[in-house]
Amino acid sequence: MKPDNINKAMLTDLYELTMAASYYEHGIVAPATFSLFIRKYPPDRGYFVSAGLEQVLDFLGSFSFDQEDLDYLDSKNLFSHDFLNYLAQLRFTGDVHAISEGRIFFKDEPVLELTAPIIQGQLVETFIINTINFGVIIATKASRCIHAAQGKNLVDFSLRRTHGADAGIQGARACFITGFTSTSNVLAGKLYGIPISGTMAHSYVLSFDEEIEAFRAYSKSFPENTVLLIDTYDTVEGARKAAQVGKEMADQGYKLKGVRLDSGDMAQLSQDVRKILNDSGLYDVTIFASGGFDEFRIAKSLERGAQIDAFGVGTRIGVSADAPYTNIAYKLVEYDNTPVLKLSSGKQNIPSSKQIFRTSLEGQFKEDIIGLRDEKLEGEQLLKKVMQNGKPLAPPELLKEIRQRFRNEFKSLNGSVKAIRNPKLYPVELSTKLKNLQEQVIIKIKDKMSDNR
Amino acid sequence: MKPDNINKAMLTDLYELTMAASYYEHGIVAPATFSLFIRKYPPDRGYFVSAGLEQVLDFLGSFSFDQEDLDYLDSKNLFSHDFLNYLAQLRFTGDVHAISEGRIFFKDEPVLELTAPIIQGQLVETFIINTINFGVIIATKASRCIHAAQGKNLVDFSLRRTHGADAGIQGARACFITGFTSTSNVLAGKLYGIPISGTMAHSYVLSFDEEIEAFRAYSKSFPENTVLLIDTYDTVEGARKAAQVGKEMADQGYKLKGVRLDSGDMAQLSQDVRKILNDSGLYDVTIFASGGFDEFRIAKSLERGAQIDAFGVGTRIGVSADAPYTNIAYKLVEYDNTPVLKLSSGKQNIPSSKQIFRTSLEGQFKEDIIGLRDEKLEGEQLLKKVMQNGKPLAPPELLKEIRQRFRNEFKSLNGSVKAIRNPKLYPVELSTKLKNLQEQVIIKIKDKMSDNR
Repeated sequence: MKPDNINKAMLTDLYELTMAASYYEHGIVAPATFSLFIRKYPPDRGYFVSAGLEQVLDFLGSFSFDQEDLDYLDSKNLFSHDFLNYLAQLRFTGDVHAISEGRIFFKDEPVLELTAPIIQGQLVETFIINTINFGVIIATKASRCIHAAQGKNLVDFSLRRTHGADAGIQGARACFITGFTSTSNVLAGKLYGIPISGTMAHSYVLSFDEEIEAFRAYSKSFPENTVLLIDTYDTVEGARKAAQVGKEMADQGYKLKGVRLDSGDMAQLSQDVRKILNDSGLYDVTIFASGGFDEFRIAKSLERGAQIDAFGVGTRIGVSADAPYTNIAYKLVEYDNTPVLKLSSGKQNIPSSKQIFRTSLEGQFKEDIIGLRDEKLEGEQLLKKVMQNGKPLAPPELLKEIRQRFRNEFKSLNGSVKAIRNPKLYPVELSTKLKNLQEQVIIKIKDKMSDNR
Repeated sequence: MKPDNINKAMLTDLYELTMAASYYEHGIVAPATFSLFIRKYPPDRGYFVSAGLEQVLDFLGSFSFDQEDLDYLDSKNLFSHDFLNYLAQLRFTGDVHAISEGRIFFKDEPVLELTAPIIQGQLVETFIINTINFGVIIATKASRCIHAAQGKNLVDFSLRRTHGADAGIQGARACFITGFTSTSNVLAGKLYGIPISGTMAHSYVLSFDEEIEAFRAYSKSFPENTVLLIDTYDTVEGARKAAQVGKEMADQGYKLKGVRLDSGDMAQLSQDVRKILNDSGLYDVTIFASGGFDEFRIAKSLERGAQIDAFGVGTRIGVSADAPYTNIAYKLVEYDNTPVLKLSSGKQNIPSSKQIFRTSLEGQFKEDIIGLRDEKLEGEQLLKKVMQNGKPLAPPELLKEIRQRFRNEFKSLNGSVKAIRNPKLYPVELSTKLKNLQEQVIIKIKDKMSDNR
């Protein structure tokens, strides 16, 4: 069987199916609301960027089990034929509220709330958590690089070190949302229309007897698009050869586009290389740097006066190396129109379906209030209804619209909250009504618990 | 366009295609050997576990571009029609040597070497690095959990926090290779025949008015397979109710299988829960624990006397939280039968096609020597030819064979190298011939560089 021939409905934890079977058997079919939120900030984070919603809506819109899936489930001897027949015709018929992709949100704020018959809400849990979690992680990490790069161009080079194919594709999409210029990932380019870029590796240079011959051959193949990798043997020598080839290209009416550094002390080397290029009159040949960059190293290079025009960022962004996961949770907050929560130590959550109200002052976000869904509070409402009765309320958004939205959002977020080290905590409060409701639900549970002792 | 309708040949960095186009234009078509190896150990690692080879061989065996891909590439105005026609009929025709999945290997050792016309070797780079890197990361992390768990059962719970779908599926496979009992991931179960397990979440308990009603309902649905989650409100109270239900099940001729803890001080709580169960005569009801476990926390819990029979490990394993990437490299080591290497500062590699020779003493691995491919040295040869002229030399291995191989390997690896903190460095040396060759190649390059100044 081909591992890529997959039905995403099966991309679930077994307990979702066993719970569903038990709900079905006991007639537990009332509507339930589940809330997706992140419990706390990973190190050095003070905000999150929403991403992954398009994939979730696509998944929900096409949710179904096929016969091969049902045969497999049957083979486990866990499920009745009655339940399997029920699964055979099950489709997602619920409603979804969500924060649009590219928007900023904060811990404890629901980025998505879903209301559906409980079996449906349960069966889609794993995929939703997986997809939004990863989208948010990478979009957030990428936005930090954008912040650190102070307007320099960033290119996504992460595909070779991401955790599999989806991660490479969705990661490229998340990077583009936050303002990356392009990606090296050809498939992401094809699927999402993201600009693709890239030129040569060390192996190309090594496959010629002389470095300069490799440079000449490449400039002949791509006279309009030549970026020469100059560190295969010695970066400074490589820069001299690149300058030579740059002058030869100019003689033929072409322009060398750039050089790339991939190792060594980039701040120092970039200054040396800039001087070599300038001394040859190649002022507008750009210097591109790659190799181990992330927001921290970008910031440090620029502080040290690096003459780098664009950064290729790969591994550390593609896996969000300093924060490869979040404490994201998808929790039942309402069942059969009754607010619920769990009390487990340290993990108390907020009951009921909610809305987030964001106030701004002079173009800067001021405060968020998490309230009840039907409250009328001051501020912009962040959760929009995006799916009703299992049907999306709008076609998928254009990626460039999401990208523009992020750009506007990010401008409105205070620099102290965006800081890549020790960010300031953005104020998020519960509304009075929601706080009261939470207290009432806790009291009700505790009363019941002491009754039962 | 559906992001899951993907052709993996397109899962590549653009520079692989631009280099290929330039090679094609300049008639650079000689065979090349590329070597895949990890430059250094991530924190606290002293070995790696091979995984992901089956996916690579499957990819190479079906490598081709379809018309839609070629149309997309054409739209970029980078490639000649001549080159695109060449791509249209391109298949992988090379040879692959690799270390079998489930085997232990060490830094600097090639886990895979590929020899093919250079264009082919270049185009498959990104996918190969991505796939083996991820397989190795997770198999290595999982093996550390197995080591820490001292024979307790481990279940993979990682799907909801892995970086996308592939990561969930291939991660489950890697965990199973190293000895995990089962996975919660239904699709991985279906695709790879891995046993699946799982019972209930907090939402199940919350959807009933009373915790004990939830327990009774579940035991009625799955009388042969009931594991009750007891921490929704209060773990000790939950244990008492579970014991009550366990006794009711016994009266009806069934057996409660286990209880699960998911929060709080697990070492202490597990002892309290064990006592409650034992006091009700439920000695063989197992205690299952989940929530933030990895090798470090498993080891700590057991040191503190936790009465835990099985661990569910999720997030930290699924993303290899403390080491989410390796310094893996795929480097040209031979072109047109001439050994090559790059000199970039700090990244010097080993030229030529190679073999690894492993000697053992009294059933324990003693030392590895990396030699030339055709050297005849003492010891077992780790690199096996697995593909010739683009055809796999054997059908895919059964997962249980790989699992058994790992079991044997792991026994032969000294405990000090397996330590989860500060492992001892296992000895790996280059053969005299390989060392001499490396020196000769470096001298040759340096001579050429000084000639050119």
